[in-house]
Amino acid sequence: MSFEEYKAALGTSASRRALLFRDGRPFHVLLSQQFSRDDLIHLTDTATSIRRLDRHRDGRDFLRGLLRGIRVMNLFAQPSTRTAESFIAAADKLGATTRLVADIRTSSFSKGETVEDSVRTLSSFFDTIVTRHPEDDFAVRAAWGLQRSSRPIPVVSAGSGKSQHVTQSLLDIYTLRYSLEQRGGIDGRTVLLVGDILRNRAARSLAYLLTKFDVARVDFVSAKNYLPEGGLVQYIEKHGIKVGVDDNLESYLKRRGGEVDAIYMTRLQQEWDKGDGQPTAKGGELGTEDAFVLKSEFRSLIREDCVLMHPLPRVNELPESWEDHPGFVVWRQVRNGMWMRAALFAAIHGADQEIRARAVRLGLV
Amino acid sequence: MSFEEYKAALGTSASRRALLFRDGRPFHVLLSQQFSRDDLIHLTDTATSIRRLDRHRDGRDFLRGLLRGIRVMNLFAQPSTRTAESFIAAADKLGATTRLVADIRTSSFSKGETVEDSVRTLSSFFDTIVTRHPEDDFAVRAAWGLQRSSRPIPVVSAGSGKSQHVTQSLLDIYTLRYSLEQRGGIDGRTVLLVGDILRNRAARSLAYLLTKFDVARVDFVSAKNYLPEGGLVQYIEKHGIKVGVDDNLESYLKRRGGEVDAIYMTRLQQEWDKGDGQPTAKGGELGTEDAFVLKSEFRSLIREDCVLMHPLPRVNELPESWEDHPGFVVWRQVRNGMWMRAALFAAIHGADQEIRARAVRLGLV
Amino acid sequence: MSFEEYKAALGTSASRRALLFRDGRPFHVLLSQQFSRDDLIHLTDTATSIRRLDRHRDGRDFLRGLLRGIRVMNLFAQPSTRTAESFIAAADKLGATTRLVADIRTSSFSKGETVEDSVRTLSSFFDTIVTRHPEDDFAVRAAWGLQRSSRPIPVVSAGSGKSQHVTQSLLDIYTLRYSLEQRGGIDGRTVLLVGDILRNRAARSLAYLLTKFDVARVDFVSAKNYLPEGGLVQYIEKHGIKVGVDDNLESYLKRRGGEVDAIYMTRLQQEWDKGDGQPTAKGGELGTEDAFVLKSEFRSLIREDCVLMHPLPRVNELPESWEDHPGFVVWRQVRNGMWMRAALFAAIHGADQEIRARAVRLGLV
Repeated sequence: MSFEEYKAALGTSASRRALLFRDGRPFHVLLSQQFSRDDLIHLTDTATSIRRLDRHRDGRDFLRGLLRGIRVMNLFAQPSTRTAESFIAAADKLGATTRLVADIRTSSFSKGETVEDSVRTLSSFFDTIVTRHPEDDFAVRAAWGLQRSSRPIPVVSAGSGKSQHVTQSLLDIYTLRYSLEQRGGIDGRTVLLVGDILRNRAARSLAYLLTKFDVARVDFVSAKNYLPEGGLVQYIEKHGIKVGVDDNLESYLKRRGGEVDAIYMTRLQQEWDKGDGQPTAKGGELGTEDAFVLKSEFRSLIREDCVLMHPLPRVNELPESWEDHPGFVVWRQVRNGMWMRAALFAAIHGADQEIRARAVRLGLV
Repeated sequence: MSFEEYKAALGTSASRRALLFRDGRPFHVLLSQQFSRDDLIHLTDTATSIRRLDRHRDGRDFLRGLLRGIRVMNLFAQPSTRTAESFIAAADKLGATTRLVADIRTSSFSKGETVEDSVRTLSSFFDTIVTRHPEDDFAVRAAWGLQRSSRPIPVVSAGSGKSQHVTQSLLDIYTLRYSLEQRGGIDGRTVLLVGDILRNRAARSLAYLLTKFDVARVDFVSAKNYLPEGGLVQYIEKHGIKVGVDDNLESYLKRRGGEVDAIYMTRLQQEWDKGDGQPTAKGGELGTEDAFVLKSEFRSLIREDCVLMHPLPRVNELPESWEDHPGFVVWRQVRNGMWMRAALFAAIHGADQEIRARAVRLGLV
Repeated sequence: MSFEEYKAALGTSASRRALLFRDGRPFHVLLSQQFSRDDLIHLTDTATSIRRLDRHRDGRDFLRGLLRGIRVMNLFAQPSTRTAESFIAAADKLGATTRLVADIRTSSFSKGETVEDSVRTLSSFFDTIVTRHPEDDFAVRAAWGLQRSSRPIPVVSAGSGKSQHVTQSLLDIYTLRYSLEQRGGIDGRTVLLVGDILRNRAARSLAYLLTKFDVARVDFVSAKNYLPEGGLVQYIEKHGIKVGVDDNLESYLKRRGGEVDAIYMTRLQQEWDKGDGQPTAKGGELGTEDAFVLKSEFRSLIREDCVLMHPLPRVNELPESWEDHPGFVVWRQVRNGMWMRAALFAAIHGADQEIRARAVRLGLV
């Protein structure tokens, strides 16, 4: 199968599952849409089991024995300390050995080697690859190349270019499901996404994943030029979910704030604006600087049980004054990223059943 | 408590202890002066226990079980390979997992994130932070920020700016105490510090810590412009310790060399001289290049049981010819840094009692 | 012993063994020629035992207990991700703790410290050093410096300058021996080396090591200016091995291809051509670009049981179309590098007997 054929096959759900799963378990993790609702529920349950087992010495020792001897390479061509450290902590919690390899460019690429040879050579020393790369197709290409080799190992995307950030969307779904647990879960909820939706991978990936649940409504509030593209809106509506778009946060909240179950704030990603990688001046074409800031004075416009999320880093759009709001779960999201990535490693390597069996036996879930 | 209030509270010994200790154990390690004489004796005893337990397979396995599952982030914004490796080895000896994170600037700071958010995000994946930063206040600010969060974890300073290098002074006290053990310890001794005292963190921190013991006399030999500031001299004298200052090493040694129990040599830190980070030409305002060199021909001026120390790196001020002097303990200092840092980790995480109990039972201490 | 004396003593086999071995085991690993035929057979047998033990959970757990508590520093002043990761994986397979230290230049060298002090300081935190450096003598100097200290630890060269790449030649011998096992091993074989022999460390080191076996014939095919220097040819002939040199791969294969048991392809190392580190244009003085390419159409000229090797990275000299040839073992070479380095660590630390005893008992070898 050529790379183009492989990529095309990932576009349809049937062949996607055949390529990315083995024996019902995820093998490669490349796309948010590769997971079904059942997969998501299963993964988030595993994440909760891991999180609770980790609280006590016995549970920690149990977890650290599960992937002992498994070696995970974190191949980060693009610097992202926090994502790398989250993956490394996740693997470490299960006892795997990790390496962060950041300089894939420096060594043999300059000697004329192909990407496939480079990845395959490095993969020889590992049992799983986590990869982050500025090129959209890098993780898919790595999976394809290894799949053709005599020693294919799982590839987990930690963000490819501007398109996907699959583990971010998984941790967001986990946090949302967990935060709404007392109120019956994600089904039937209204979720508001605020900021630069057009270019924020996290917000867009979350919106796609929400269609796996019976969400009542997804609203977007953004500057007119940064609203989600039509394809995303249609995709959500096709799943029977109402979609609203607005370009004024204050008027939106005054109108509908009381109905919103969760708000997902995002940063205005100024640093993508120019081709030269320099952030543009704040504001500018995005309008006044604070038009998409969740101001303290909006507190009375939203419910006290409204979930407040942000993928971080934040600039000024979700001020510190919100940290004492009962629904503020931003720091929990960060920890959840670690638990959810651990759940992924467990599922890939077939340790998830054992984890949940133990958590059930100890009455932790 | 605002950052300014937190910082002010660290200035007085009563509130300092309340902020930096928990249940009688160090939690944050930020300042040399946070430790009492009892603390120092306790820590150095733990360090000796660890050192001796590490000599045998059983002891090593015992040690490696103590902090299993504890994750230590070494956040080094300023490159310092040897200090980082010393901390990492120390944590590893006790079975903790370590990460060296060097590029705090590269990732999210450039996206407009605050230092507090960055540290807190990264800290989510760890149980202890060791931090080194060119800014004097970085470690204190990190401790303050985490203290306000829902998941405070210990912060250990590995050197902040030009002001403090607390673990260097701890290892120096350990080496001094250990080297003088046969002769009754540090109390009553005369210690000579040579070199650029004004700007050498290690020398100044050691001088401060010596006041915790009943040292007889502390002498400084340095170029006139690089003698300790008046505050340090007064501080030592206030503790009933005699202080001498001199600007000629040879004449000092001819006069008093026979009374000196320990000599602490330091490098003339030329690289700080200019704002541009370029070392100045040797000599220059510090006088002739070798005025503060412990020349081989001074050997007859000092006792054979005089302890010879240096914080390294050295240039020419302590020539290799001294390595066969019975009191030359410079390489032991380097190893002691690892043992003392391990003792700190043990104390922070409450493993020190168990370590010493085991060492006592095996007759190692 | 001065450094010059130490270096000279490494030039003769008797004193070389005295300096580099302890109790019959390798201590420092600096030169391919330090190993006898028996050493090589012993090391490759250990590598096979490790490889086979690693296939099962019990074996992996057994291996990971062997060097527990041993700390290995990989001091790579020259970036070489794959070699570093191979060493790190090898040490990790045996349970050792590893660190990759890449910035030896950044820290204390700039403060005027000697190389010996730097290496000795860092070595204080470790039990073994693996070192790669652009200077030919760095590893030898490190071994010499540590040998004079009170705490000498093993030094393993991971490539020094352009002269030696001892572990690459060991893995090549291992792969060759293993691939020819069914046909009676290396003795009596004809080996062909193709490419830029003059400057390729791997090819030259392998040629030297082949003289430890009773090889029938070693042929070189290269551009006239890149043939091996006379010394190498004479050295091989002195061991009773026939040597042939040719500058045309196609005519060579037409003439003798059917007699060749193994072909070792190498890259034309354009990047060394200029002093500025920039690769020169392909071809040029090496003649037409593809004169030393093993073209697909040569397939009928070589035997199906001919072993095909390459040290990687490759450019175009060994096209992907060869990957289905039964003798194509290039990816096995990469894995073998890890197993052979693990065998070295095991031998250095005296764990090799236990490994082979276990493998024998389990019927794995």
